[in-house]
Amino acid sequence: MESMGALKRTHTCNDLGVQDLGKECVLMGWVLRRRDHGGVIFIDLRDRWGITQVVFNPEVNAQVHAKAHQLRSEWVLAVRGHVEKRPADMDNPKLLTGAIEVMADELRILNTSETPPFPLDEDVEVSDTLRLQYRYLDLRRPEIANNLILRHQAMQCVRAYLNSHNFLEIETPMLTKSTPEGARDYLVPSRVNPGKFYALPQSPQLFKQLLMVAGMDRYYQIVKCFRDEDLRADRQPEFTQIDMELSFVDEEDIMGLVEGLIAELFAGIRGQRPKTPFPRMDYAEAMRRFGSDKPDTRFGLELVDLSEALKGCGFKVFQSALEKGGLVKAINAKGCGSFSRKELDDLTAYAARFGARGMAWIKVKENEWQSPITKFFSELEIAAMRDALDAQPGDLILFGADTAKVVHQVLSELRLELGRRLHLLDPKKDNFLWVTDFPLLEYDSEARRYTAVHHPFTAPKEADLPLLETEPGKVRSRAYDLVLNGNEVGGGSIRIHTSAMQQQVFKALAIGEAEARDKFGFLLRALELGAPPHGGIAFGVDRLMMLLTGASSIRDVIAFPKTQKATCPLTDAPSTVSRAQLTELHLRPDWKEEGKA
Amino acid sequence: MESMGALKRTHTCNDLGVQDLGKECVLMGWVLRRRDHGGVIFIDLRDRWGITQVVFNPEVNAQVHAKAHQLRSEWVLAVRGHVEKRPADMDNPKLLTGAIEVMADELRILNTSETPPFPLDEDVEVSDTLRLQYRYLDLRRPEIANNLILRHQAMQCVRAYLNSHNFLEIETPMLTKSTPEGARDYLVPSRVNPGKFYALPQSPQLFKQLLMVAGMDRYYQIVKCFRDEDLRADRQPEFTQIDMELSFVDEEDIMGLVEGLIAELFAGIRGQRPKTPFPRMDYAEAMRRFGSDKPDTRFGLELVDLSEALKGCGFKVFQSALEKGGLVKAINAKGCGSFSRKELDDLTAYAARFGARGMAWIKVKENEWQSPITKFFSELEIAAMRDALDAQPGDLILFGADTAKVVHQVLSELRLELGRRLHLLDPKKDNFLWVTDFPLLEYDSEARRYTAVHHPFTAPKEADLPLLETEPGKVRSRAYDLVLNGNEVGGGSIRIHTSAMQQQVFKALAIGEAEARDKFGFLLRALELGAPPHGGIAFGVDRLMMLLTGASSIRDVIAFPKTQKATCPLTDAPSTVSRAQLTELHLRPDWKEEGKA
Repeated sequence: MESMGALKRTHTCNDLGVQDLGKECVLMGWVLRRRDHGGVIFIDLRDRWGITQVVFNPEVNAQVHAKAHQLRSEWVLAVRGHVEKRPADMDNPKLLTGAIEVMADELRILNTSETPPFPLDEDVEVSDTLRLQYRYLDLRRPEIANNLILRHQAMQCVRAYLNSHNFLEIETPMLTKSTPEGARDYLVPSRVNPGKFYALPQSPQLFKQLLMVAGMDRYYQIVKCFRDEDLRADRQPEFTQIDMELSFVDEEDIMGLVEGLIAELFAGIRGQRPKTPFPRMDYAEAMRRFGSDKPDTRFGLELVDLSEALKGCGFKVFQSALEKGGLVKAINAKGCGSFSRKELDDLTAYAARFGARGMAWIKVKENEWQSPITKFFSELEIAAMRDALDAQPGDLILFGADTAKVVHQVLSELRLELGRRLHLLDPKKDNFLWVTDFPLLEYDSEARRYTAVHHPFTAPKEADLPLLETEPGKVRSRAYDLVLNGNEVGGGSIRIHTSAMQQQVFKALAIGEAEARDKFGFLLRALELGAPPHGGIAFGVDRLMMLLTGASSIRDVIAFPKTQKATCPLTDAPSTVSRAQLTELHLRPDWKEEGKA
Repeated sequence: MESMGALKRTHTCNDLGVQDLGKECVLMGWVLRRRDHGGVIFIDLRDRWGITQVVFNPEVNAQVHAKAHQLRSEWVLAVRGHVEKRPADMDNPKLLTGAIEVMADELRILNTSETPPFPLDEDVEVSDTLRLQYRYLDLRRPEIANNLILRHQAMQCVRAYLNSHNFLEIETPMLTKSTPEGARDYLVPSRVNPGKFYALPQSPQLFKQLLMVAGMDRYYQIVKCFRDEDLRADRQPEFTQIDMELSFVDEEDIMGLVEGLIAELFAGIRGQRPKTPFPRMDYAEAMRRFGSDKPDTRFGLELVDLSEALKGCGFKVFQSALEKGGLVKAINAKGCGSFSRKELDDLTAYAARFGARGMAWIKVKENEWQSPITKFFSELEIAAMRDALDAQPGDLILFGADTAKVVHQVLSELRLELGRRLHLLDPKKDNFLWVTDFPLLEYDSEARRYTAVHHPFTAPKEADLPLLETEPGKVRSRAYDLVLNGNEVGGGSIRIHTSAMQQQVFKALAIGEAEARDKFGFLLRALELGAPPHGGIAFGVDRLMMLLTGASSIRDVIAFPKTQKATCPLTDAPSTVSRAQLTELHLRPDWKEEGKA
């Protein structure tokens, strides 16, 4: 291996062009490809910025050419040379440097490389585990590298916007208190305080509220958060949030500010500025029309409520659902009347995954409504359905009949599935939507008490306050979610800022006074010492970047992601530790140790 | 409590001046002080930006005046009013808004406040615990708030500089692998992987090196790091680092880049651009002249080696030190010849704290060298000392005689103490210094093996490679520290980038092949797959901000610091958790539980 010596890089591998002909240059990078052609060696030299063709010609420099014979894929080189125009028909228009090549005058081999476990210059299927195990190789691929570059640019864009709006970026602690509300905490045993544990933050929620009480006025942080949940494909045990909080504001102020931020971000990264202000929809309408609190508004296929029209119908399934206080809703899958039996079976199976016990359907034909269930409906009922659904020959009507929760779950997922099948999810559209007026509380029938839909610090709507004691489930909150193409990208609320109101909400959540003081006493105390009105919002960076870059997984926008088992195949984390380490932390194992009974 | 209603803040409490006379405005903030004067109520309204005087005059608006009678300290207000000039002799030149006042036309009380546990507008002594418990009140004090504002500005300045130098900010994992080298890890038990643990990162060292192998070329991150060490006054269990790594660079490139960064930062925050390039000193010279690898170069009082001059002297203490291979060094405390017995005793006691077994001294008088030990020295020896120390009448010579380690420890601390006593530590001076050429390894006589002075990934100097097997203690590394006024603010190195060299250093560290593969196998593998030459540096943000702001403790530059027992008096972290939480983590307690024998 050679050292760089006095060589200093003069250009990146994406810099040189016809304007540089004849210039001397020093490039450093990796051998992407090597081709030998008529005794001449051609190297595609790659760095973070791009690719430049380097030529080793025995007639120009026999010694350097001889040395170049050793070169293999992914070796690391420093090359001194001079810029020449490529022969007329050899231009590579795909490369920014495609009109030139660098004729090598000096070559230093800074490092060799063994043959990589997977090739980097081809689109080969590689197992996820292998990719993660050799993440540093995977990151050399321009698609993945580019995601990290865009992520960097996006975060700096967010900072620039927030800085210019008087925000302060303030760090909050990572070693915090465990408050087993919401998701499961990651715990960190304390060595100097035996029997005590820190928790890694699920969000800096309480700290940012305390910063408002402290008078910091506008806070943000791009910060790691942690949830020890069973992982799904698009979840990571640690994730990054853009976290914000503002004082002396209401919902309008926050939404306006966020719209400006998102517009900047999308203009900068996607090259497409979304129209502001974003449309708004309250929770009730979103559920009614889309069965979802995060509707994808890029296409129609809305849910239509037929409960009223069919309340006396002869179809038992519908009738029984309605009698139990449920709903009958339908989607008109425009133009899908020609779906095959197989396609309908597939859709039925898909619906079943979300809780449907069967799926009724009707194909609308010129002269008949073709379906096993048509016979149960009167002329009047069919006419009412036709009107409500705007059913035309060639359409397909899909029904859901069950509790409101199941109907909405099933039909909203069916709607998305139809959207995908009918290619209605235009990847070029960025459809933003504010969903507002969420319920404050929801009844947990297992725990037999109300729980907070967002979190216990969300302010109720003033108009609904009288309902807090009488009909808690009907109280709306001052929460808002930002939805993009059916993905929740951010959520926040105006917070409770008086101790009295906070105690009232704790009471509605069946958190007793003692428990409240024990867990949240410091917050209640802070609210008694001059807390300003405040509110905020947080954005999930990983998902946002996935949407911004068009990546297919959040793993592709994270430098070192973990698997679904929360492991890191690269470093082999988590791993066993010594018994001495455990003892220092005042802990004993409670697992079967290898090699022991 | 009232809501803001339709009132929108128009100005901060630091905005209005004589240019705004007659304007209507809406201010929001906290009651800092209230004064009643001739039936008129004066409020100093405070927000993050400043203070504005608000006047409630019964003759202007009797109703609002009546309402203002309730106001108390730290209540939160919205005030609509108009700007008036203060009466001619009532200006407050200390405030930016001191020439005007706002005549209130409308008052909304957004929140009340109980009497704070300590006053915010006076410089009262408050216990640290109380300050931390009510951190949100402490943060309302402009001095502390201002530190956070400066910290925000400093970090954005760092980002702007690094972004403009082609760096990417890339996030590395917080849940990583425990590698019990260096300090103690904070561990995080894994629920889904029984018996396994994550570690919180002590630094992203290996990840940033892997990012270089990945071709990211220039990485930085402002990132939380964790060390479970016994805490000293200026240490926190979690701390923030500016972490950088670069490819295809040598020491010169990194130092040059850092000097530009630091110059920007100090120009921006301190208003004083340090001269670049910074002076450099190798480790050997720093130890020789200052007895320290982080010398404060704002003043002299350097150490002078008298070992040669006194090698035959009659003073047993010196002789025995020299015979054992130790040193005799001295400082000439210029002009301190008039120190009292008490002062000398104090200095002796101070020296003892750092390992001195007594302290020899000589007062240089016009006609004699006054000291209990003068009698042991020959004329020649006294002349040699006089020359070496440039001793003049009125000077005080302080000696250290012991092993090199003890002599340097004691005299470097004595030197700093003299600097403080003699007011030589000019707070206006920013004396930067690069200390270079550290030893790669040091012998740990307890563990009977060499350990890494920086970390095991630091590259040795090429010229010293032959010594690695024969005299490992003499091998110098390619490490460098940046020192400011005697504080280490940053440190880094050129890293090993070949697997062969890394294995050689592991061997020198007595890390066997199996252990190396087990702990660092992924790094060794990465170094075999095309690792570029690379190096980096990291800065401790907390200490840097303390030096930038002139704060007396790092706690004053952290929003929510922890105590020396690593607790948070505000949130009461760490705290006990339920047994169920432990069981889920496959752990059992190994501590005395309260209420149990």
